[in-house]
Amino acid sequence: MNRKLLVIGCGGVAAVAIQKCCQNSEMFPELVLASRTVEKCDALVASLKGKTDTILSTAKVDADKVEEVVALIRRVQPYAVLNVALPYQDLTIMEACLHCGVHYIDTANFEPENTEDPAWRKVYDKRVEEEGFSALFDYSWQWTYAEKFEKAGLTALLGTGFDPGVTSVFVSYAKKHYFDRIDTVDILDCNGGDHGYAFATNFNPEINLREVSAPGSYWEDGKWVEIPAMSIKRGYDFPEVGKKDMYLLHHEEIEALGKHFPEIKRIRFFMTFGQSYLTHMKCLENVGMLSTTPIDFQGTKIVPIQFLKALLPDPASLGPRTKGKTNIGCVISGVKDGKPKTIFIYNVCDHEECYRELGSQAISYTTGVPAMIGTALVLDGAWRKPGVFTTDEFDPDPYMDMLNKWGLPWVVVEDPETVE
Amino acid sequence: MNRKLLVIGCGGVAAVAIQKCCQNSEMFPELVLASRTVEKCDALVASLKGKTDTILSTAKVDADKVEEVVALIRRVQPYAVLNVALPYQDLTIMEACLHCGVHYIDTANFEPENTEDPAWRKVYDKRVEEEGFSALFDYSWQWTYAEKFEKAGLTALLGTGFDPGVTSVFVSYAKKHYFDRIDTVDILDCNGGDHGYAFATNFNPEINLREVSAPGSYWEDGKWVEIPAMSIKRGYDFPEVGKKDMYLLHHEEIEALGKHFPEIKRIRFFMTFGQSYLTHMKCLENVGMLSTTPIDFQGTKIVPIQFLKALLPDPASLGPRTKGKTNIGCVISGVKDGKPKTIFIYNVCDHEECYRELGSQAISYTTGVPAMIGTALVLDGAWRKPGVFTTDEFDPDPYMDMLNKWGLPWVVVEDPETVE
Repeated sequence: MNRKLLVIGCGGVAAVAIQKCCQNSEMFPELVLASRTVEKCDALVASLKGKTDTILSTAKVDADKVEEVVALIRRVQPYAVLNVALPYQDLTIMEACLHCGVHYIDTANFEPENTEDPAWRKVYDKRVEEEGFSALFDYSWQWTYAEKFEKAGLTALLGTGFDPGVTSVFVSYAKKHYFDRIDTVDILDCNGGDHGYAFATNFNPEINLREVSAPGSYWEDGKWVEIPAMSIKRGYDFPEVGKKDMYLLHHEEIEALGKHFPEIKRIRFFMTFGQSYLTHMKCLENVGMLSTTPIDFQGTKIVPIQFLKALLPDPASLGPRTKGKTNIGCVISGVKDGKPKTIFIYNVCDHEECYRELGSQAISYTTGVPAMIGTALVLDGAWRKPGVFTTDEFDPDPYMDMLNKWGLPWVVVEDPETVE
Repeated sequence: MNRKLLVIGCGGVAAVAIQKCCQNSEMFPELVLASRTVEKCDALVASLKGKTDTILSTAKVDADKVEEVVALIRRVQPYAVLNVALPYQDLTIMEACLHCGVHYIDTANFEPENTEDPAWRKVYDKRVEEEGFSALFDYSWQWTYAEKFEKAGLTALLGTGFDPGVTSVFVSYAKKHYFDRIDTVDILDCNGGDHGYAFATNFNPEINLREVSAPGSYWEDGKWVEIPAMSIKRGYDFPEVGKKDMYLLHHEEIEALGKHFPEIKRIRFFMTFGQSYLTHMKCLENVGMLSTTPIDFQGTKIVPIQFLKALLPDPASLGPRTKGKTNIGCVISGVKDGKPKTIFIYNVCDHEECYRELGSQAISYTTGVPAMIGTALVLDGAWRKPGVFTTDEFDPDPYMDMLNKWGLPWVVVEDPETVE
């Protein structure tokens, strides 16, 4: 059968997903790597030469344009498209997949590139009012494709990264094997890595800032509760990492879990931030260095945050120098056989080991590996059914097996520390 | 007699000194204001029109060039020159005064503009080794002029600002009226002002940074003790301001006091810095924003600290919005009539009152008023003797009287809080 996969995007996560596919040549006998910057694809192919049985080729594509993606799919004739490009491009690529009759997989849900676009804004404002959370991204845009994918007999698997992705599989796995009823889920994302700089960002500081300065929200009793940015702080002692402060943020898997597991009374997401990181962000914000509005400087217009970006270490340079581990998982409480029960399912990932294996630190690694796994399960048929789905809507067992096999082993601890 | 004064410099301190001279027209019947930017002088003269009996005129001068200053002095024929320009220009202006036979007064001791200059560096390195303090400024350069001024029958009065300046007069006043022997002096400089910005600097951030990041030093048992930057921190409850944290810094009056009062066992200088100010400085330093080395940005060379300066509020804009007070003074301990004794002599200055009076906040006010006073005493003859002197080498009484009269009233408290 046709197992050719078209991968769109060639950044840090894509590089991990592609290398993992190349380790799994039986499942992925042929990949076509496409990006706006085809040179990045060519360089990756060159680095993999002689190291894999997977047949690799490359192509140039502007994924903002449905017709370009359609033309590429027609030429390549893949079985599925793995979208590891920007989340702005989810809808154009889904359209193209529908048009050509191929399956679709991605890792992060749609958000608009231009949040000032009046057409988008109108839908957004309505959603904020009806749903009560103001994050700029949500699943609604992609879920509206459900009927079309179902009718076409195609699978769209959304958000198969770590969080969202693995964290949702952890919940469905817990429900299948550990609970009769789940009452609360706390998703904890801890990066205990240290790159040795006083301050650096793992990705674009502008996006980093947006995350830290946006209101947080969580799901409780069937509705959203929104809180001021960074206003709920908790400590947690993470296995293999240690004690960290973490803050409640909005995160996309909450939306899917709330919809698919109506029994769950409360779902929250916490991410760790060091005090030093937050202090630097605040100080830079105070002096205006995070502003996106250009200022006049010696006759030129300069955007402060872009100047800051030029001063900060290139996120790509952090890989070889980052030490320490991530710990991402779910603290899940509920009832089994009439008795209250709590478990913590998590994965620990070591930045230096990831870098030695694939030349990427754990942030890209933990997202790229699940992208390969989700795609493999769609190709394999185990996770193939007509419609648009998140990772909590399939049998978790084969996914959990593959996590152990492909570099993200998980642990279940009973009676763990809980989050207040 | 000729009481014409030539004032070189037209920044914040100069504006205060000039306005104070104009309030004291009897002593200062005629001023010539000179600056590289003559427009600043013209604007100040325009603002004083009709408000003073002092005759005012302006001139353009580049004070880096001895011959330009000589030509200006020859043309103006003043009795003395008040140098409130940059401390880089102390030596050229002193040379010109000697050449033309006029008295010289300044507020801050010499430092080189180019600290990489090998000729200067050689002398500096020798001084650091011999004296044991590494501040970039010291009195040695100006003290070498002592014999020349003495032979010429001219007075050079150095450092008649607040600190140095008033603080040294406080010590000689204490010695004259309160002590048989002084054992320790702690000079405390507290700015309790609040400009309402999360972060802003009272003057050039580059000079601010240099102050905070330089090693501290103090005088003990006849020699310098140098300590890492900001490593000695003390709290003090300042009258009319309240409790503040302060840090030991090197400061120029210590050098003069140590030389002229060999009985004093220990002389230290402390300045208050708020934790928020220090945190911002540190964060900005960490990300490279305080660097003076240009970086390539979008095809242009940009010096980070200059870009920062463009983002920060203009120091001149702080005046109208700064509330609160300064408290600067000396905690002096010693012996009187065989008994131990401690006093605190200090002045409290209110930012808003200064601004209402002269359009400057207290930082410029407290330096500019003593510049006028020292100059008046040289013109008057009370502080005129041949040679090069600091303010601790004259009778303190007329200076102390004038502080009370001209806006910087002082207080003596017996048995004050001491500094550990």
